[in-house]
Amino acid sequence: MTAKPRIAVTLGDPAGIGPELVARLLADPGTAEQADIVLISDERELADAQGDAGVEFSLDQARLHDNGAARPGTFERKVATEAGGRWAMSNLRVALELADAGEVDAILFAPLNKSSLHMAGMREKDELRWFETILGAEAYTCELNILPTLWTARVTSHVSIAEVAAGITRENVLGAGRLLHTVLRDSGIAAPRIGVCALNPHAGENGRFGRHEIDVIAPAVAELQAEEVDAAGPFPSDTIFLRREEFDGILTMYHDQGQIAMKLLGFDGGVTMSGGLRVPICTPAHGTAFDLVGRRVANTGSIRNAFDLAARIGARRAVRHSA
Amino acid sequence: MTAKPRIAVTLGDPAGIGPELVARLLADPGTAEQADIVLISDERELADAQGDAGVEFSLDQARLHDNGAARPGTFERKVATEAGGRWAMSNLRVALELADAGEVDAILFAPLNKSSLHMAGMREKDELRWFETILGAEAYTCELNILPTLWTARVTSHVSIAEVAAGITRENVLGAGRLLHTVLRDSGIAAPRIGVCALNPHAGENGRFGRHEIDVIAPAVAELQAEEVDAAGPFPSDTIFLRREEFDGILTMYHDQGQIAMKLLGFDGGVTMSGGLRVPICTPAHGTAFDLVGRRVANTGSIRNAFDLAARIGARRAVRHSA
Repeated sequence: MTAKPRIAVTLGDPAGIGPELVARLLADPGTAEQADIVLISDERELADAQGDAGVEFSLDQARLHDNGAARPGTFERKVATEAGGRWAMSNLRVALELADAGEVDAILFAPLNKSSLHMAGMREKDELRWFETILGAEAYTCELNILPTLWTARVTSHVSIAEVAAGITRENVLGAGRLLHTVLRDSGIAAPRIGVCALNPHAGENGRFGRHEIDVIAPAVAELQAEEVDAAGPFPSDTIFLRREEFDGILTMYHDQGQIAMKLLGFDGGVTMSGGLRVPICTPAHGTAFDLVGRRVANTGSIRNAFDLAARIGARRAVRHSA
Repeated sequence: MTAKPRIAVTLGDPAGIGPELVARLLADPGTAEQADIVLISDERELADAQGDAGVEFSLDQARLHDNGAARPGTFERKVATEAGGRWAMSNLRVALELADAGEVDAILFAPLNKSSLHMAGMREKDELRWFETILGAEAYTCELNILPTLWTARVTSHVSIAEVAAGITRENVLGAGRLLHTVLRDSGIAAPRIGVCALNPHAGENGRFGRHEIDVIAPAVAELQAEEVDAAGPFPSDTIFLRREEFDGILTMYHDQGQIAMKLLGFDGGVTMSGGLRVPICTPAHGTAFDLVGRRVANTGSIRNAFDLAARIGARRAVRHSA
């Protein structure tokens, strides 16, 4: 059972391809059928986005929520600026506040630019930490990387390689494993199959190159299995992605272990999700792509997939909360 | 200028697909034109190999060097055994001794089985360390992973992730970078282009997730450039492999950083080389594949590529040493 979800949408950094991608998404009449859309933007930004994209959409397609933030007449394009970062953050903050108040079931944001965000004062290590400060975390939180037929979650994320091993604890492997299981179920997979990566080369080769597999990861996998999570592993990380058809999700131990594979498997169509928060927050896996701005060639595959996923998970949440 | 190289060839673990792959390699009349082959084996093993492969080759194709090692009448197939490990090691040891005596210019060995080797008493961390104990190391040694259009070398190898960061020193990055440059030149590429991986996610993001990029890797890349090595980087490891056409070789910081990508890019045809020793030692990237033994379906792409590479580098060494 699902209900029509309510999705807050922001256009991302105004210097990048985000606004035109959102315009093309909304110009598709199917989009508004999937969800009630709250566009956090203003009339000017929406007009510019439609101009860039060469499409038109009616506001019947979406409710405009103008946050009234001060804006410089126009934004510089194709370059990171403090003004652009402030604008993107202020719109996204409104989306988070709507989610916190229970007024939306999911958030889709178009690509942000890290340099703009830093100039605008974001001090958190990544967006997920910033979301947590506003929404709070229900349990374990984790960035998920999503291709059409494969998800990855990671136990450690934006930390140096020197800090990875210390972050691979039983609690963290369990937390990330449970989260991956839950979001895969929320996305519509009834019995998700999860493959778990080893930490060390050759899965530690029976303890010769490290003991995390024996002392930490295998016991955590057993504990997940006892909770009826269909988890298997740990498997060597240089071959697990060759077996990807056996899994709906792969749990990686560190950022590049998953991202090296995921970016080789498919750059187009990828989605990044912030998991473990009050609402699912989805965004295209790609960046602001300044080189593509205004050329009407940017691929909409990722923003379409991100919207579809937000709608799918948001619909289940909408039912749960209205039950 | 090149000379006809002399290549020592061993058939690897007798339980696996090595013997039949070598038989198929030698049954190709072109093979003996590329090199003078010294087969470290015995009549019985060669007969069995030809039977398994369903091919015949004449010993005009290769000189048999019977090391006289004791052998059990027949070897068990498709299973790791101490006897098989001893046999594979004794043949390979003869090849190494011939190389040490200057009697061959390169070595090709068919796949070994780690369990057999352990049962037979190999205590070194990997084959490369064992080769070093017999041949000595000329300078920096390193395992190289080779696909038809991309090589990788690694700064750290069979160590736990917890030990990786400490192994990323200026000296080690320089050593591995120089080695990769040298073997790429020896393989026939006049001006090899080398891409250097970062250690940390997002290349450390300006020091926020680790400082190895700033303090160690970038200075080492500058030093390589000063030595007229065409090196560039450090680049984030989750996107460098998407740019692989820009490079002949990629220098990775740890085992799985390269191997996750290389195994996704092409499992068939891969070659592993032990670099930095008195002679190049090449082997197929795959293992003993017990499930394929005797079925005449095993792919010869990797052993062919390994032989070709041994012959190419061996020929340059043959010239150098006879000059």
